[in-house]
Amino acid sequence: MLTPGPLTTSDVTRQAMLVDWGSWDPEFAAVTREVCDWITQIATTTRDDLRCVPLQGSGTFAVEAAVRTLVPAGGSIVVLVNGAYGRRLAEICRRSGRLPIVHETAEDVPPDPADLAALLAAHPEASHVAVVHCETSTGMLNPLAAIADAAGAAGRRLIVDAMSSFGVLPVHAEHPAVDAIVAASGKGLEGVPGMGFVLLPEAVLLASSGRCDSLAMDLSDQYTYLKRTGQWRFTPPTHVVAALRSALEQYVAEGGIAARRQRYQANGDTLLGEMTALGFRSFLPAELQAPIIYTFHAPRDERWHFADLYREVKDRGFILYPGKLTQAETFRVGCIGAVTTEDLKSAVVAIAQSLAALGVAQI
Amino acid sequence: MLTPGPLTTSDVTRQAMLVDWGSWDPEFAAVTREVCDWITQIATTTRDDLRCVPLQGSGTFAVEAAVRTLVPAGGSIVVLVNGAYGRRLAEICRRSGRLPIVHETAEDVPPDPADLAALLAAHPEASHVAVVHCETSTGMLNPLAAIADAAGAAGRRLIVDAMSSFGVLPVHAEHPAVDAIVAASGKGLEGVPGMGFVLLPEAVLLASSGRCDSLAMDLSDQYTYLKRTGQWRFTPPTHVVAALRSALEQYVAEGGIAARRQRYQANGDTLLGEMTALGFRSFLPAELQAPIIYTFHAPRDERWHFADLYREVKDRGFILYPGKLTQAETFRVGCIGAVTTEDLKSAVVAIAQSLAALGVAQI
Repeated sequence: MLTPGPLTTSDVTRQAMLVDWGSWDPEFAAVTREVCDWITQIATTTRDDLRCVPLQGSGTFAVEAAVRTLVPAGGSIVVLVNGAYGRRLAEICRRSGRLPIVHETAEDVPPDPADLAALLAAHPEASHVAVVHCETSTGMLNPLAAIADAAGAAGRRLIVDAMSSFGVLPVHAEHPAVDAIVAASGKGLEGVPGMGFVLLPEAVLLASSGRCDSLAMDLSDQYTYLKRTGQWRFTPPTHVVAALRSALEQYVAEGGIAARRQRYQANGDTLLGEMTALGFRSFLPAELQAPIIYTFHAPRDERWHFADLYREVKDRGFILYPGKLTQAETFRVGCIGAVTTEDLKSAVVAIAQSLAALGVAQI
Repeated sequence: MLTPGPLTTSDVTRQAMLVDWGSWDPEFAAVTREVCDWITQIATTTRDDLRCVPLQGSGTFAVEAAVRTLVPAGGSIVVLVNGAYGRRLAEICRRSGRLPIVHETAEDVPPDPADLAALLAAHPEASHVAVVHCETSTGMLNPLAAIADAAGAAGRRLIVDAMSSFGVLPVHAEHPAVDAIVAASGKGLEGVPGMGFVLLPEAVLLASSGRCDSLAMDLSDQYTYLKRTGQWRFTPPTHVVAALRSALEQYVAEGGIAARRQRYQANGDTLLGEMTALGFRSFLPAELQAPIIYTFHAPRDERWHFADLYREVKDRGFILYPGKLTQAETFRVGCIGAVTTEDLKSAVVAIAQSLAALGVAQI
């Protein structure tokens, strides 16, 4: 699978799900503790007050939980948008009664920190800023450090949706303006989907007690209960957590974030090189591209239909991903998961064969 | 494991998690559709307007989603409480800004439908009634049909937390007052935990559009999107869903709800008989007991500590469950999951051996 999560996992990771776990059992409490400790260590090796709070559900549930736990109901939050996940962040705020002040740029344009500073000056009522680190709808890497600087200089707190970048790229967990980093099990850590997590300073978690207007999504409660009992407040996705523990063990054995980033970068370089050789045009310029997922313009050939390519390529053993842009017709190929440059090369061969079978000549 | 979920699953169910699925793929859409169709057919064979809406997360997330999707923010809801899960239901309402009007009875006393009728007459502002079908903190079966009658007679809508009873006991899905039946993957259907679901009439789902004050928990949105695209709105727990599909296949092959109920009843009868023979006293009288989980009074012996018994019994291959009562010292033994009367007999032998090893004589 060349998708941005769920993605291809290793056999060892999936085999970790062959055992049943009692959620109340001390052995399962140890699994949860190991998972949270490893995640915290991936985020930062220099800061010791950061805590990993796991949450049942997809990454979106964890993003909503972070917003509801940190931003008071009725409060305001500046949301930087340049793609579908930024728009979703704004919608989460809107639906939960936190007023989003949206700063939107085009899907191939990163936010300008100077614009953010001006917006924050005009909106003293906004306590937080939220941004998607790698905008998976295009593959764009947003300038997180500069955004954190601008938020910090204005005395605001930052919520980072690091869904597809966590474990691959630095998430600037040491930055004093960062209040929350949100990610999930089934992305760059190469677990299976079903668990989100949020990294927050312990002081922020404790100060947030009683603020969340949702029982299931209260990260402060989840943390306090977990710390006191070693257990999740509500039934954990035990097999998903066990798979993530295994995936993290393999992550560490591979060489941690540097090795993971290097493999994904090599995957991405291979993909981009081979696709360019076929004649495909990348949607993003290289300097904005994260080594996670790549967006390509659809061929101009009138015989082109993404659904046909998807089916043909799938018959050859690879799963692609549709585009998610509002302005341009595109499709996407992920380069994360338990895949190597050999897999990416074979995938592009499958794409070339499929285009030939479909009679798509003009790319 | 003799726990009420996560519980013991079959090898076949766990092996269904050895494959990765693309969440966008038509094959995974077919898995989701099969799971939802089977669940709907388990709930009712005579009503064709009921829809199964799956949701990421634990059962508690699905309960909160039902409350937020059905009851308007600022609205009122009568909550029947006689245990920890009823109290949790009330807390979900309180935290989400729906005023719970709590009718609480003792942990061994079912609610009286006449009392409910009087309460509803005194509270015309309450649009809904919520009740836990099988209160897992004791194992008590609440009188669902009579409660639905009382709610219906007063023109109110019923939300049923059928977490541990669904697939085992009739949930009265045909009752015209029932608006939502909530359950989860890792209970009586014997899947792994990580997915909840809510059964609702399609008209109720459509009429609820725009009411939910949470993006992640909006069941109306989830249903509409799923119906239109075949996909979940946000990343589904793919492996958990695949395991549930396998578990449902085995459920149907076993003989459906009648066979499941019969096996659990035989398990429960065996457990209760053997435990009574050892001298243990059941917390509930037989007529209030669901064949799901059994609560026993703790022995009076001063050498009794549940943690010791838990460890000794675990060393012998079985996992018990702690008590969850406020008034009495108890512990619990579940009889659901991929277990048989032989397993229950062996478990009670392990309990007897453990008590002897611990020197607990007076039961």
